[in-house]
Amino acid sequence: MKADLLAQLVNVLGEERVSVTEADRLLHGRDQSAHPPHLPDAVVWPHTTAEVSAILKLANERRTPIVGWGAGSSLEGNPIPLRGGIVVDFQQMNQIVAVHAADFQAVVQPGIFYKDMNKILGRHGLFFAPDPGANASIGGMIANNAAGTRTVKYGATRDNVLALEVVLANGDIIRTGSRSVKQSAGYDLTHLIIGSEGTLGLVTEATLKLAPLPEHFSAVLATFSSTAVAAAAVYHIIGSGLGPAALELLDAAAITYMNLDEAINLPVAPTLLMEFHGPTVETLQTELALVQEICTDGGATHFSAGVGREERDRLWHGRHQLGEILFRAHPGERYLITDVAVPISHYPELAAYTADLMSRMGLQGALFGHAGDGNLHTVVFPPADNLAIDLHSFNDQVVEKALRLDGTCTGEHGVGIGKQKYMVYEHGETAIGVMRQIKNLLDPHGILNPGKVLGD
Amino acid sequence: MKADLLAQLVNVLGEERVSVTEADRLLHGRDQSAHPPHLPDAVVWPHTTAEVSAILKLANERRTPIVGWGAGSSLEGNPIPLRGGIVVDFQQMNQIVAVHAADFQAVVQPGIFYKDMNKILGRHGLFFAPDPGANASIGGMIANNAAGTRTVKYGATRDNVLALEVVLANGDIIRTGSRSVKQSAGYDLTHLIIGSEGTLGLVTEATLKLAPLPEHFSAVLATFSSTAVAAAAVYHIIGSGLGPAALELLDAAAITYMNLDEAINLPVAPTLLMEFHGPTVETLQTELALVQEICTDGGATHFSAGVGREERDRLWHGRHQLGEILFRAHPGERYLITDVAVPISHYPELAAYTADLMSRMGLQGALFGHAGDGNLHTVVFPPADNLAIDLHSFNDQVVEKALRLDGTCTGEHGVGIGKQKYMVYEHGETAIGVMRQIKNLLDPHGILNPGKVLGD
Repeated sequence: MKADLLAQLVNVLGEERVSVTEADRLLHGRDQSAHPPHLPDAVVWPHTTAEVSAILKLANERRTPIVGWGAGSSLEGNPIPLRGGIVVDFQQMNQIVAVHAADFQAVVQPGIFYKDMNKILGRHGLFFAPDPGANASIGGMIANNAAGTRTVKYGATRDNVLALEVVLANGDIIRTGSRSVKQSAGYDLTHLIIGSEGTLGLVTEATLKLAPLPEHFSAVLATFSSTAVAAAAVYHIIGSGLGPAALELLDAAAITYMNLDEAINLPVAPTLLMEFHGPTVETLQTELALVQEICTDGGATHFSAGVGREERDRLWHGRHQLGEILFRAHPGERYLITDVAVPISHYPELAAYTADLMSRMGLQGALFGHAGDGNLHTVVFPPADNLAIDLHSFNDQVVEKALRLDGTCTGEHGVGIGKQKYMVYEHGETAIGVMRQIKNLLDPHGILNPGKVLGD
Repeated sequence: MKADLLAQLVNVLGEERVSVTEADRLLHGRDQSAHPPHLPDAVVWPHTTAEVSAILKLANERRTPIVGWGAGSSLEGNPIPLRGGIVVDFQQMNQIVAVHAADFQAVVQPGIFYKDMNKILGRHGLFFAPDPGANASIGGMIANNAAGTRTVKYGATRDNVLALEVVLANGDIIRTGSRSVKQSAGYDLTHLIIGSEGTLGLVTEATLKLAPLPEHFSAVLATFSSTAVAAAAVYHIIGSGLGPAALELLDAAAITYMNLDEAINLPVAPTLLMEFHGPTVETLQTELALVQEICTDGGATHFSAGVGREERDRLWHGRHQLGEILFRAHPGERYLITDVAVPISHYPELAAYTADLMSRMGLQGALFGHAGDGNLHTVVFPPADNLAIDLHSFNDQVVEKALRLDGTCTGEHGVGIGKQKYMVYEHGETAIGVMRQIKNLLDPHGILNPGKVLGD
């Protein structure tokens, strides 16, 4: 990085908030994916929107790449600074600016982490529902349109953001959306920014739609004879008009991995892990009876509802730990994380195909997903004795299957680096051309997260 | 319209689907708003996306204005062809292309009307939830991001559209979104098009998210001593975790107008008209008991739940007829329809302010709205003996109040003609500048619905 640009950054932020040390650069060179790291030239920690604006103005004039940074927990290489430049770490812009409890809204800075935020919001009886599992930053969740176990009931991040403050490539600051939950006043810039992975602007403030903490809830476990039978039960549950707050599929291998945690002791079988929320115990009981009926009719080999709070927390902790358990069980091994989604009617076919492909390729790992909204993940490892196995070919085949089933190459991890090659297949040349024009319009010098989403 | 352009249109569509008769032009010169009509030069009725593409290519080459047309039921002048040109009437592109019942989705053409579509979808046990009251076309609902009585539970149109086929100004055809309910694959062009009022492209096909028809439902009526007290009860209901499927506020005058219908005989008082849906009778009963408790605690003077199907249908029919009843009661009078929305916590203040302003200005008409999502309407008429009263000044004051309360100048009717003057106030110069750049990018010759949303 040129000394005069560095001096200008120091001028804006002070020396203690600009770093070029190798330690800091290493910490901002990789995410949780298998994509190879690339180091930025500098890392900066702004405190205000005005500082972010000043940084972007400088970078834009100097044609220097800018990459926003939250928790580094993304899974598709989304924040890896492929072309070097400046990483803007939002760690020190992590405040809750306002809680509008009566409106079920909070205004927050992008650097706040999901779990930390929800701990504070819980005091108001509220929570931000899209749960990515990881303790992601809100800015990162917005950038990637993250989703998770609660999305089946509450939607993805894009469904739960009402308004944004965004700094554009040239340093201009815009406010999009409204605190009104309804708005038909012009073009929807909020949704254009959500999921754009920091390639159209950097979010410096977000107004989030919150949900009231459920008064009563119950986790539900149902096991099935096969992954496909379990997957088939899913849309009967959704079709009944029941609104599960979570509806997760776990294959037998996933359960085996979860059981490696001493606190978990589940029957090893394809499993649906669900949760129901209700305003009263009676409401909840009625829903649980209905879901039991549906699961039993759908061939469940075991069903247990009314799981107590402690056991429920343990199960969800286990579910959220699954990735980590997988990596601990395969230390240092090559791995790949897949993330596709299809319409629910095609979910059994996708799940069966993927399970079969894993088995045919001799891959270890687990198959699991947010079945209620058609999202399927795997974490796969090649067998130790077969270094020739091409994990990317596995990904290609899973994605192609999902696209043939009217689905998407990425349900919630974003395009980042790994999914770019599927974008034209998914959207067509013309739509990708429109996306590219919008990118060029808003970031004419290509400084924002270059090499991502649409490539260079 | 120049003869050679007309000949080219006839060449594409045949003579019977191109009209320059005054009768056809008059039918396509005004909507349901008070904005003065303006006639197009020609009206065309395409049958296919390829035809729409050919029409747009011609118009783009000839710099001829193009305005999409659905049911003509919009309320802000949105489809009035201000600069003449060609109206593209989608009346003959009104098919349901596919029903994916297991996925709760339908693929439809833009010309199908809301009520007609839901009648057909009902055979599959499904419905498209955003209910605009009027028998709007789906294309129009998408163009204006329409919403209505069911939005409090099911969201607005933008929350219920998964994918679009869109013809751009130059005739290019793109497909946006996915049948997968989750997608994080690039920029969200679907939401950019929704609510753009035909100024960025014409929708030729839409994949809609449907909801299962509720197994059990009940309408609920609660009356209160004042509009403000009724409005205050609203967020207690929402805050309880209950999910009403409708939560409408009607002032005493609105009830008086509704009672003009012989089938309706409601106590004349500020009223909340609600509906609850449940998977079982027990679930529903529990919810009704809870809402009664909340209303009683909130000062309800009368409460009745468990309204039977027939009475419930009559009430909703009455609610949906309200606009028509108002116009019948004030034949030929000047009128204005307002449409603002605010965060729910500010709803009582907005309602009280608006009621007071109506009274101070001596306006007749009614105040009502989709209270559950903060949306407030009025239909107002100046007193017959005061022709000097400026209805626009009433609108200005209501909108300014809504914007001061963190709201929006239009909750669901769109910008059209009447709300353009508030756009900079609501979004700021810089954000409007971005919208304008996107408009210029996608429609460089300004042929698409010129003079709307952002003006010329």
